This record gives sequence, structure tokens and C-alpha cells, in this order.
Amino acid sequence: MEYNLATRMIGDTLQLGLAGLGTVGTGVYETLCRNYELLEARAQISFAVKKVAVNNIHRERDLKIDPALLTSDWRELVDDADIDIIIELIGGTTEAYKLIKAALEAGKPVVTGNKAVLAEYGSELFKLSSEKGTPLYFEASCGGGIPIVQSLQNSLICNKVESIAGIINGTSNYILTSMKDKGMPFREALEQAQALGFAEADPSFDINGWDAAHKALILAMLAYGTPLNPDKIAVYGIERVESVDFVLADRLGYTIKLLVVIKHHAQQDALELRVQPSFVPKDHLLAKVDGVFNAIAVKGDIVGESIFYGRGAGKNPTASAVIGDIVLAMRECRLSGYHTGFQPYTKELSIMPMNETVTPYYVRFRVQDRPGVIAAIAAMFAKYDVDISATTSTNESVDSNGVRWNHLVFMVHACKWVRLKYVLRELTGNENIDRHPVVFRIETFND
Amino acid sequence: MEYNLATRMIGDTLQLGLAGLGTVGTGVYETLCRNYELLEARAQISFAVKKVAVNNIHRERDLKIDPALLTSDWRELVDDADIDIIIELIGGTTEAYKLIKAALEAGKPVVTGNKAVLAEYGSELFKLSSEKGTPLYFEASCGGGIPIVQSLQNSLICNKVESIAGIINGTSNYILTSMKDKGMPFREALEQAQALGFAEADPSFDINGWDAAHKALILAMLAYGTPLNPDKIAVYGIERVESVDFVLADRLGYTIKLLVVIKHHAQQDALELRVQPSFVPKDHLLAKVDGVFNAIAVKGDIVGESIFYGRGAGKNPTASAVIGDIVLAMRECRLSGYHTGFQPYTKELSIMPMNETVTPYYVRFRVQDRPGVIAAIAAMFAKYDVDISATTSTNESVDSNGVRWNHLVFMVHACKWVRLKYVLRELTGNENIDRHPVVFRIETFND
Repeated sequence: MEYNLATRMIGDTLQLGLAGLGTVGTGVYETLCRNYELLEARAQISFAVKKVAVNNIHRERDLKIDPALLTSDWRELVDDADIDIIIELIGGTTEAYKLIKAALEAGKPVVTGNKAVLAEYGSELFKLSSEKGTPLYFEASCGGGIPIVQSLQNSLICNKVESIAGIINGTSNYILTSMKDKGMPFREALEQAQALGFAEADPSFDINGWDAAHKALILAMLAYGTPLNPDKIAVYGIERVESVDFVLADRLGYTIKLLVVIKHHAQQDALELRVQPSFVPKDHLLAKVDGVFNAIAVKGDIVGESIFYGRGAGKNPTASAVIGDIVLAMRECRLSGYHTGFQPYTKELSIMPMNETVTPYYVRFRVQDRPGVIAAIAAMFAKYDVDISATTSTNESVDSNGVRWNHLVFMVHACKWVRLKYVLRELTGNENIDRHPVVFRIETFND
Repeated sequence: MEYNLATRMIGDTLQLGLAGLGTVGTGVYETLCRNYELLEARAQISFAVKKVAVNNIHRERDLKIDPALLTSDWRELVDDADIDIIIELIGGTTEAYKLIKAALEAGKPVVTGNKAVLAEYGSELFKLSSEKGTPLYFEASCGGGIPIVQSLQNSLICNKVESIAGIINGTSNYILTSMKDKGMPFREALEQAQALGFAEADPSFDINGWDAAHKALILAMLAYGTPLNPDKIAVYGIERVESVDFVLADRLGYTIKLLVVIKHHAQQDALELRVQPSFVPKDHLLAKVDGVFNAIAVKGDIVGESIFYGRGAGKNPTASAVIGDIVLAMRECRLSGYHTGFQPYTKELSIMPMNETVTPYYVRFRVQDRPGVIAAIAAMFAKYDVDISATTSTNESVDSNGVRWNHLVFMVHACKWVRLKYVLRELTGNENIDRHPVVFRIETFND
């Protein structure tokens, strides 16, 4: 079925098909109703929701919605010749992938807020969108209400993106903020976040970094026009961040944030792509982004540093982004054969191996308080030519054998990860050193 | 002359007419050359600069540009039937107004970075743009490289804007930052800013708040779709901020920023619109925006608080915004009879009188160290039912008559400005009190 919006007259009412009435879908429907007049006046386009696909049409809902709009089969939205734009908010990857693909193949523009499906199938779906000339909008998939996607596509379009660094998972940022401000251990901060509704019952993807990684993949595909998939990104979560690291970070002038880092290395034409808890200098704006808030710092060759801050999740902020895309989709429906969606793939960028990535580091050893321990560690750094910029230490505890343990911290100048890895590997055998040293990268934001 | 872009075929090369080769114009031309391939690939539109209007075509320039492109008459750009889009970067208001008006009347989309002309003639020009269906783009007129205009027009379109608060003058922010961090008095901080190129030889408009006020007017016209002009805004500059106020602000948990405040009062359907040095709580992100950087906080009814941070001025950041608009203009040239520019005027909003505006305040009196002075002041606050939340004081100096002077600070709970004004007026006659009390509004960001 070939679908041609260009045959419609301006002034027609555009028909929307909404798939999904979960949290975000409900927020979208409510907001479309609540601010309808404002939207029509601003966008100067008349529109209506024609059908809403849900899992169970008989389920009790808080939402006031005409039951005649509901269908349990999303295919009805794609097959309905009157529906101009599909809004995919069903979540998950299997059905969402099928729906987006079917809609694009039918020539119907798609708005989605689904990061998981784009992280996994984005390369294929963006390509399909490009080939079909049918736009795929995804502002709500990265950073909730923060207008990062449209800004990269439009206002910042003349910039080579040098790097993107961001805090794009609200749950983990809420937990890290509690650890910093209240001295809570990880487990307690997580439980409190769950009790307050800032973390889900199963918070795995927020805690282990994969939610942030999905968004990072989408941002990188967008900024560099390169296909990517989840295999390409190095991901570490916040599960192993300890209270003592916050104390030591603070003393050294840093705080700890779960950072997404996307950096283009022009010389190698390769992308550095990683998510991990990192040291952020206290005077950098990202260090001040607390609680459930998100922020994304973009460095462009022309604009310099820009930072976008706001609510990265939640019903209404995400609905705001979805509706921004719906209006853009409606505006672009007035075009034919052209869209402002994804830039075409020019080439596939290579990914820099983690071993080759260069940052300064914070390395904390838990060591027995005995003569020669510091010397042994320092000698190993020297052997691999890894340069120490500062050290600090703090007492930890006395164990059941009466042995005193200390935390020993080495701040290390920028070097390739592989070199530090060799140092740590060689020190693993040392009986005076706990076998799990703690390493954080330090993001300087200087390059 | 009626100009119809719709007759052109997709794939044609769009022709740009650039008026002005000052700092920003040069940045635009250089960037269009430098990132041309990137732009064509991303925008999928072929374009060229056909003519460049300058004051003096014989002037020596650092810029490499074919002299055949230059003309000394901007009318040539408007009259050239091949030129599709006009970029106005000549500055000033008189010629810029004529140029923009002529271009819109000729049906040619205009991109401008000129805040002065929009603050003064925006109401008329936006109306003309709307009537003609010819877009007027102005991202670069507010906040340099920060994509605030397009974000309000697109991603955030479903939001009723509750308030906008921002630091949108880099020079004054640089000066206030030096006063805060280095304890410099105003005059010294200004001179240093001039020596370093962060303030112009004549910095009047940056210092007296009018540059920020121009931008505030544009943002308010955009966010509320209402005509405005410079008479409508209350403007106070930073000339009278003293070092002692930074010391006291810090002690009380605040810093001082030149803030633009735009707030919609739904009950009265009126706009609060003002620019003035204000107390900002130290833990708010705006308090951390230092040096020449700008930041704009937008509260929407759906998205909540969003903050946009970046370089608010300078050749390249501003060029980035101009080119973002050029690409949008080129994309929208592919449309006919429709544009994403300014929302149509629905009504003219009333402006709230300053007397009616409500915030907490910081009030500093310079007083003689004598019995009864505090009592006299406190009694006057009580008389007008103005509630004091905290006080602090600091010794100032001993004058030539041997009289000791102190600074006496009263932190005042939120009340209408008119009530505090009465208190201050009644205290003017008191010989123990310096006749110029210092008042700062405190922005709480809570409503």
C-alpha cells in the first residue's frame, strides 16, 4: 500500500493513530486534550486522534476516552487509510519493531519514544525511513522532555559534533545524589528511591547502565549518521559505587555521576562510546545536576559547549517531547518527498576499543596498613610509565585478625586504559592489597 | 513583486543573499564554506551564497570572498529574483528594519540575528510575516548559540509557558562573576572585561540591562504570541551592584545575577516582564552559570523546568544559530503557503505593573551605628505589614566625623513591590540612614 499525504489539501484535519496507553501514552492523550486549542493555534493545523491501540480494550482506566476509539490490534492503525501519522508508545522491542517497520513501509510517518527498540533496531529502521522518505521522529527516546534530538537536527545542524557527555538516567542520578548528599550506601539509596517511586520494582536497566546506553546509542547514531547496535558500547553501572568514593571524590574536588560519553576522534575517525560512573569536576555544570534531572552537554566545532537540562523521564515531560514530534510530523506531512529526519548513512564509523581510550583516573586500593605497600604499588605504576598526579588515603577498619586496612587513592594522569589495566593485573597477586581495586575515569571536559 | 518558491523543483540550488559582513556575518560565511559538505549531506539541499551586501565593498577583509559577490546596496538582494532567502546581519535598527520589511513584502523568508530591530519593530514585523505567510527566523537574536527559539517553536510547542528566567547578557555576567569570585568592585571588573575583550569600548547596553531587555521582549513575544515594545519592560542594570552585596549574598545563601524574568499570571492574564540584578539561591543551576555563558530556564505546564545553557554571543556561536535558521528556512522553502514561524496574534496581553509584582527582597541600609536605628526601620516595616524573615549586618567604615557606619540587611518575605516602596519612602527622611538603600529581588523559582 502506497500512502500519499501530498494529495491532501492544506486545511484538512490530520488523523493520528496512537499505539499504547501506558504512562506516556496516557500523558500524550491527556495533553492533546488539555492544550488542544493552544496547539491548533500555534501549529495552525487541525488534527484528531482517530484510533488508539491498546493491549486490553476492557481494562479500567483513569483516562476519559471514548471506547469507540480503542482497538486491540495495532495493525488497524497502519491499515486505516485515513490515519496519517502513527505514534508508537507500546514499549518493548518485538511488537514495537514490527509496528514501526510496517508503518514506515506503508509510508506513514512514525513518532516513537521507545529507546530500546531504536538502540536494537535503529540502524535498520533509520535506513528504512531514509529509503522510503518516510520520517521517523524520536525526540522522546532520549532525555525525556529535553529537546536534544530536534536541536541536533536543526539549530545545531552546522556543527561537527566533537563530543556528547550526559547524565541521561534519572533513577541512577537520584541514587547517586542520595549517596552524595546523605552519605547513604548504595543499597539504602536504591531502596529509598523505590519507596519514593523514583526507581521501579525491577530497576536493573537503570542501575546497570543499559537504559543510559540505549539513549547514548541513539544520540551517537543521530550525531554521526552511523549505524550502531548495543554490541558497540562499553557499559558499567553504579552498583559498585561506594560511599567512601564520594567522600574521597569530594576531598579531591569531584563528584560521581553516571556519565554517557560519546567522543569523535578525528585522527582515527573513530567513536569512543561508553557509559560508566565517572568523576566530574565539582565546578562543571554537570556536577550540579542532581536528583532525577538529566543534562546533556554537546560540544560542536562552531557553537562550542551547549548544555540541555530538564526532566529526562516521567509521564508529562515525555509527553511534551512526543507532542513536539507529532506537530513536526504534521508540519512535514505538508511536504512531499522530503523530511528533516535522519541524515543518510554516509559511512559506518569504527568504534575505538576501550583499551585505547584515554582519560585521567581515580584508583582506590583497599590495603593492609603495612610497610612497603605504597612502595609496591607506586613501583608498578612506574613500571608501566603511568604517571601519578596526587594521592590521598583514609583509614578503613580493623578486621577480625586485628589487621588495619586503609583506603589508598592514586589520581593518575591521562593514559590509555590498557596501561592502567596492566598495572592492576600485576598487583592482583599482592596479598596486602584487596583484589578489587576501584577505578573511576575522570572527565575533564577540556578536549 | 510576488515571489513564489513553490514553482521551483526539489533539487534546485537555493540561493542565499547575505546582508552584512561584520563579526557574525563573517562567521556565517566562513562556517558555510568550512562545513559545506556536512550541511548539504544533513540538510539534503543544495545551496549557494549569491550576493553579499556590505557597507564598503573596497574595505580590506580577513575573509576570503570573491569580490564579484559583493554589493553595497542591500536592495539588490531583495530585487534579485534568483535569491530565495535573505540573511540580515547588518545590525542597527533603521536600515535593518527597512531591509526585513522589504524582503517580507517581496515574499522572501528572512533570517536575522538582530535583537534591537526585533525588540523595537518585532510586533510589526511578526505581523507582516504572518500576513504574508513569509517566515521570519530569529534564533540568533536571543541567546546566541543556544537553541531556545526553535525549542519553544517546536519541541516545547504543547506547553503553556509559565515562566522564563534567564541570564542572557554575557558581558554583565562576566563582570558579576569577577565581582563574586575576585571581590573586585564594579568599575575594576568592567575595565578588566574591556581589556580582555569581553566588554565593548561602549558597554552601555550590556551594563544597563537593555541588551538583555531586548532579548526578553523577543522571548516574551514568541512564548505568548503577543505584541510588545520596549516601553513594556522594567529594566535595571548592574551599575549599582556593590562588592558588599556579594559578601552578604554569599553569607545568606545566594549569588547575584542579572536576571530576565518573564512570568505569566493566569489569574490576571498578565505578563510580569523585567530585567534586574537579582538574588539567586546558590543551589539553583542559574547560580552556577558563570563568565560569558548564558542560560535560560523555561517552565512549561507539561515539561516542567528545562534549562538551556551555552555561549550567548560571539562570532561562531551566533553563526551556528544563524545557519540553523538558514537550513530551516531552506527546508520550509520546499513548502508553500505554510511556515513554522511566529504564532498568530490571538490577543494583546496586559503587562503587570511593577508595583503589583511579588517576590521576596533583600534590603540593605547603610546606617549610623546609633541606638534606635534598627528599631526605627523595623517599626516602618511593621507599619506596612511587610514581614522580615532574617537580618544580618556588617561594619562598614568610620567617616571623617568619627561616626561609625554599618550595613544593615533585612530579608523580606514575598510582598507586593508597592508596599516595600512605601517603607523605603518613609525612611528617606531619617538622618541616621543613607538615602540610597539597596534592594534586590530574590528569585525563588518555586512558583
